[in-house]
Amino acid sequence: MMDSQETTRTQALMNAVRAKIANRALGPGDRLPSVRGFARTMGVSPSTVVEAYDRLAAEGVIRARRGSGFYVTGADLPPMALAGMGPPRDRAVDPFWVSRQSLDADPTVLKPGCGWLPAGWMPNAALRKGLRALARAEDALLSDYGSTRGAPALRRLLLGRFADEGIAATMDQVMLTGSGTQAIDLICRLLLRPEDTVLVDDPCYFNFQALLRAHQVRVMGIPFTPTGPDIAAFERALAQENPRLYITNSALHNPTGASLSPQTAHRVLSAAAAHGLTIVEDDIFADFEPALSPRLAILDGLNRVIRIGSFSKTLSASLRCGYIAARPDWIEGLADLQVATSFGGPSPVAAEVIAGVLAGGSYRKHMDELRQRLTRARKEAEDRLRPLGLLPWIMPRGGFYLWCRLPEGRDSTAIARRCLEENVVLAPGNVFSVSQSASAFLRFNVAQLGDARIFPVLQGAMEKA
Amino acid sequence: MMDSQETTRTQALMNAVRAKIANRALGPGDRLPSVRGFARTMGVSPSTVVEAYDRLAAEGVIRARRGSGFYVTGADLPPMALAGMGPPRDRAVDPFWVSRQSLDADPTVLKPGCGWLPAGWMPNAALRKGLRALARAEDALLSDYGSTRGAPALRRLLLGRFADEGIAATMDQVMLTGSGTQAIDLICRLLLRPEDTVLVDDPCYFNFQALLRAHQVRVMGIPFTPTGPDIAAFERALAQENPRLYITNSALHNPTGASLSPQTAHRVLSAAAAHGLTIVEDDIFADFEPALSPRLAILDGLNRVIRIGSFSKTLSASLRCGYIAARPDWIEGLADLQVATSFGGPSPVAAEVIAGVLAGGSYRKHMDELRQRLTRARKEAEDRLRPLGLLPWIMPRGGFYLWCRLPEGRDSTAIARRCLEENVVLAPGNVFSVSQSASAFLRFNVAQLGDARIFPVLQGAMEKA
Repeated sequence: MMDSQETTRTQALMNAVRAKIANRALGPGDRLPSVRGFARTMGVSPSTVVEAYDRLAAEGVIRARRGSGFYVTGADLPPMALAGMGPPRDRAVDPFWVSRQSLDADPTVLKPGCGWLPAGWMPNAALRKGLRALARAEDALLSDYGSTRGAPALRRLLLGRFADEGIAATMDQVMLTGSGTQAIDLICRLLLRPEDTVLVDDPCYFNFQALLRAHQVRVMGIPFTPTGPDIAAFERALAQENPRLYITNSALHNPTGASLSPQTAHRVLSAAAAHGLTIVEDDIFADFEPALSPRLAILDGLNRVIRIGSFSKTLSASLRCGYIAARPDWIEGLADLQVATSFGGPSPVAAEVIAGVLAGGSYRKHMDELRQRLTRARKEAEDRLRPLGLLPWIMPRGGFYLWCRLPEGRDSTAIARRCLEENVVLAPGNVFSVSQSASAFLRFNVAQLGDARIFPVLQGAMEKA
Repeated sequence: MMDSQETTRTQALMNAVRAKIANRALGPGDRLPSVRGFARTMGVSPSTVVEAYDRLAAEGVIRARRGSGFYVTGADLPPMALAGMGPPRDRAVDPFWVSRQSLDADPTVLKPGCGWLPAGWMPNAALRKGLRALARAEDALLSDYGSTRGAPALRRLLLGRFADEGIAATMDQVMLTGSGTQAIDLICRLLLRPEDTVLVDDPCYFNFQALLRAHQVRVMGIPFTPTGPDIAAFERALAQENPRLYITNSALHNPTGASLSPQTAHRVLSAAAAHGLTIVEDDIFADFEPALSPRLAILDGLNRVIRIGSFSKTLSASLRCGYIAARPDWIEGLADLQVATSFGGPSPVAAEVIAGVLAGGSYRKHMDELRQRLTRARKEAEDRLRPLGLLPWIMPRGGFYLWCRLPEGRDSTAIARRCLEENVVLAPGNVFSVSQSASAFLRFNVAQLGDARIFPVLQGAMEKA
């Protein structure tokens, strides 16, 4: 027998689930929160949650599936318009952690740890104009497969940009991909074999690690400095470890915001040439720079350096389009691989919209405004974070990241877990660190710090952690 | 000193190796054929092979490893001569051949060998309407990343279709992917290890072979009959070869157009259960069927069968969107893999357009008309091909393929090469055949046979071949 207080609690839980279904936060087929997780969220014991779920199952509102939890039944309910519950929160803080928490978060979650700009900061008017133009395009563009290397119009625009930077590339040196990540994935498929050694920066973009894990290669981190990789460590790794590939951001490095110095660039390339190393330079933040900083792909002329990039950060992540610029023989192999594994590259429709926006005059103006807005946001973020004891490692010359050191003795993973419980997604340092040596850091996205509710949550979590 | 004939032979060998590297038959780190074996294959003396290998080593294309032969270097391949805009025509007639020739063909090329409908047959009015609606959507849809499993609206529509067929799946059993091919690629990444054995039908869709080659697995063909795989051969393969995966089209099989019988379906599933085999059922031609034929995924209830599909054949290939329906634990792993390797699935913008077209009433009407049109086209194609001696293996109940047998002694690869010289892309039987036993067949796309210029070219090529 339950006492009356427990009965009340059970009823409250049942009502909470019914409310989620009624307001379509949960739809038919959606999985309910785990017993343990829901108990924690609601401040009750797991047995109370079990009781509530069992009663709802008896009512036919939900049903249990052996070994995999409870699900909303209600096939008769009208289809939902809104997204479901979002990601489970109890998973490991690993290289997937930030992507999971931020990609699947419901719209009420605040995301100062995520890797993109708020939707309102993107060139939406130009995108709408592009979509309206597309609605008048010829049938073949709307419904045919594209060519294996992607839309020539967009590839030509890229060649024009490369030419402005001093790279004389040709059409057979550029191909489009489904995303910047997919660009690197294809390169890994072409050049790597299991057990190869791959160098990354430490810290580096967390998804490089997730991707390389999928390729079953050995990942080695090179300590990163405000002017690029620690060149002595880099040269030592080349001499001793025979790495096949080095993946890096030269400009506005993720997560630190640092950019490569000319001297480090030259030494990295010289060491690579001496040891037959191939370099993937991820140039995804290029358009955020106030002026062009040193690039390995430019110094090298697309010989042993492969440039990749995408349009997700400045134009639209929803259109899903990246690119690879490399030697023609590699592009040929990569295009075959993309046919084999995706039967082509990005949506031709998406490439058309992107080419339209890039070719129009409004993109340049959009980027000018965006850079100014981010300069202000960086300053404001610094002013808000510094009083909490969060100090930028460097002040980046562009982009939207601030890599901040915590006060002595604080652990960013613990802080991120606490903030997540209060609907704030952070990016704790160790998800970026192969050596797990960045627990004293958090990466902030200054464009996602506009909501004042973030700071008391952050402060509270720091005091407890 | 070599005489000029020997010089020519050496050059020919060097070119053969370069071609293998360019088309990825040999990749970085791969071992070259043994001197003795390559000499035998090419009909030259071993000393000529040694000379060719030594020269390629001097160029840095390959390198000798003491006591173990020659290996492709990869990092230092010399750039190839600049390729033209279209696909090179002298490449091997391998599983990539049809995709290369048809995806990159210029618009004047006729493509009765390709795998899609003419653009004018697609639901373009509905696509245009969807794009106009999209131009009015909220900012977040236009520029944000999507959720890791893809747009809930489209996934719900798929669940509704599954429910109509008798599959009671839930939201955590469906995810969207960048294409049907990418769906299979992710599944291979999750479930396969190099050297695993994978079964396919013989003949099967050529890109299954290209894809599996990228995974470095052992591919085994099961002879295909008008009612599905030869069940005795299938059961034998399971008992003897311990395959990990079987990839098939149950309905309107590519290239034959055949559909699985209920008896074969039951025996395939029983054998799979007995041997712990997982099956990927590619349901891409589902909507072309006049009525639902047996499906492994339905009989099995998405337990050991994974259903994949896409919207490329009936709605738009330009929008690039596929899906996977499977057990929840597999979907969870596949979603992580898609984040690691593509940072998400298809374009949310594309998924929105597709969901809009599917939900609207016009799609059903479009498909009704399309099926009628294809029934007429199949009959017309048969009437045009039969006088040339090209006889359909079976008359499919739907779809756009006709798998035709050539008159005795004709070789479809030779015919396809000749037709390509006259700007007609065919699909020769052996690109579909693991055992290379289908040289007496051609796959025709009846929707692409409307241009009367095709038939004299075909007739001429058949007379010469």
